[in-house]
Amino acid sequence: MTVTPDWIAVDWGTSQLRVWAMAGGRVLAAASSEDGMGRLSPEGFQPALLRLIEPWLTTGPMPVIACGMVGARQGWAEAPYRPVPCAPVAPGALMPVAADPRLALRFVPGLSQRKPAADVMRGEETQIAGVLATLPDFDGIVCLPGTHTKWAHLSAGEVVSFQTFLTGEMFALLAGQSVLRHSVGASGWDDAAFAEAVADAITSPARVSARLFGLRAEALLADLAPETARARLSGLLIGAELAAARPYWLGQRVVIVAADGIAHAYAAALAAQGVQAELLPAEQMTLAGLTLAQAGETP
Amino acid sequence: MTVTPDWIAVDWGTSQLRVWAMAGGRVLAAASSEDGMGRLSPEGFQPALLRLIEPWLTTGPMPVIACGMVGARQGWAEAPYRPVPCAPVAPGALMPVAADPRLALRFVPGLSQRKPAADVMRGEETQIAGVLATLPDFDGIVCLPGTHTKWAHLSAGEVVSFQTFLTGEMFALLAGQSVLRHSVGASGWDDAAFAEAVADAITSPARVSARLFGLRAEALLADLAPETARARLSGLLIGAELAAARPYWLGQRVVIVAADGIAHAYAAALAAQGVQAELLPAEQMTLAGLTLAQAGETP
Repeated sequence: MTVTPDWIAVDWGTSQLRVWAMAGGRVLAAASSEDGMGRLSPEGFQPALLRLIEPWLTTGPMPVIACGMVGARQGWAEAPYRPVPCAPVAPGALMPVAADPRLALRFVPGLSQRKPAADVMRGEETQIAGVLATLPDFDGIVCLPGTHTKWAHLSAGEVVSFQTFLTGEMFALLAGQSVLRHSVGASGWDDAAFAEAVADAITSPARVSARLFGLRAEALLADLAPETARARLSGLLIGAELAAARPYWLGQRVVIVAADGIAHAYAAALAAQGVQAELLPAEQMTLAGLTLAQAGETP
Repeated sequence: MTVTPDWIAVDWGTSQLRVWAMAGGRVLAAASSEDGMGRLSPEGFQPALLRLIEPWLTTGPMPVIACGMVGARQGWAEAPYRPVPCAPVAPGALMPVAADPRLALRFVPGLSQRKPAADVMRGEETQIAGVLATLPDFDGIVCLPGTHTKWAHLSAGEVVSFQTFLTGEMFALLAGQSVLRHSVGASGWDDAAFAEAVADAITSPARVSARLFGLRAEALLADLAPETARARLSGLLIGAELAAARPYWLGQRVVIVAADGIAHAYAAALAAQGVQAELLPAEQMTLAGLTLAQAGETP
């Protein structure tokens, strides 16, 4: 069966390449590979893309819109950051990139912030545009949990400010590579331990660094269960993040862009603080954002 | 030249093995290798030790006193933790270990704590005994900076309580393996950036997790110097530790057992809080502690 899309959507991050054959906002076919930006050298970029999308190409130039690290300085071509406040995706700001004549390739630029603190995002702006496409006139906070969790304040169709936390990466390093790896399970969960740790970290962020080694000591002295240690480590780190991000979520409408189980952990932690967050699926937000960019509309 | 010691001192950690030929408290000769516990399998323990000390052995059983991870559950033989409050090293509690007939091998047990929080140490108890041997009647706080920094409260010759922080390991993971590795220099320093970050983290520990990604963003947007990023990361993490360890150092006499440059960073951070810590050299404290154990004395 031949798939003939109007255009092709591309989400190209550090570790993964995902593509969709699109008809307007409808998905005709999807494909993915492990050819993330972090695993390719520059001469490998175009071949990695063509390996996935060649079956969908014709002679004419096919519109291809890509978001993510593909537009970073170390990516295929740098799409300079757009400073906030601004709409998360501005179709006029898509950056054309020279490529195979069968492609009309454009990259979505990331966003940057100087004040109140330096910050950058690349990829999440597209999901935020998807949130605005899904919830028109949304005013409030978008939380995008991940390796580098982002909190963004949206108002009147613009990203007003945002802040990034290393929580996900720190969890992976502590659980997988520090001395805690002997005590923290690779899977499993304990809701009560998570909730207690979040509450403790929010109330007293200073205690977080004091409690981390305790996971190891309790495993040695009191047979702390690996799944309890895992949930407690996650709770301490997410609690510390929530304490720091309080100005973002306190008394606000919050949408979580959910990629996996960790989104539910954030939702539970916020619920304990009295914030009932809405969850929207991550892949769908990426596609909605790319569709908006392709259609030439502002969210 | 033949060296004929009375006894042999051994400090055997995860990554290094260090030995000293001793006459009472005097060092006749020293040797070391990279044969840490973490790099050996059980059948390799005795050969690794003999490679360094064989030239010092005679027929009779030579007293050999070892501290560190050699006595851990995953070490040569487990020397069970002694619960605090207790003297840091009790000669009667040294654990004899079967070995080559030319050796009378004994391990120094580590210390454990159940309340107020589970904690363990193994190796540092020997340095703390060395502090007591060096400063008789010392009452106060011993800070032992390292991969896992320890704070111990000493009173009347006993360790009353202690607390471990992952600060050193977290710095190594964030600076070397997280996204911050692109922005944090492998060397270099900036005193002012360190002091500012310590002050900020002590005042507002919640801000630490918010400021970490900022090191990356400032490098991308404002060319933050790698040595400034390095000092700021160190300051944020040490500041968070000092905020959590405040009950230990506030208004106390503090001794820092100094192994390397990081001890001076701790001293500077404490000085900014009005605490003039004394510095004692780490290797000398280890030897003083092992000497005390060998002599059969309580500090």
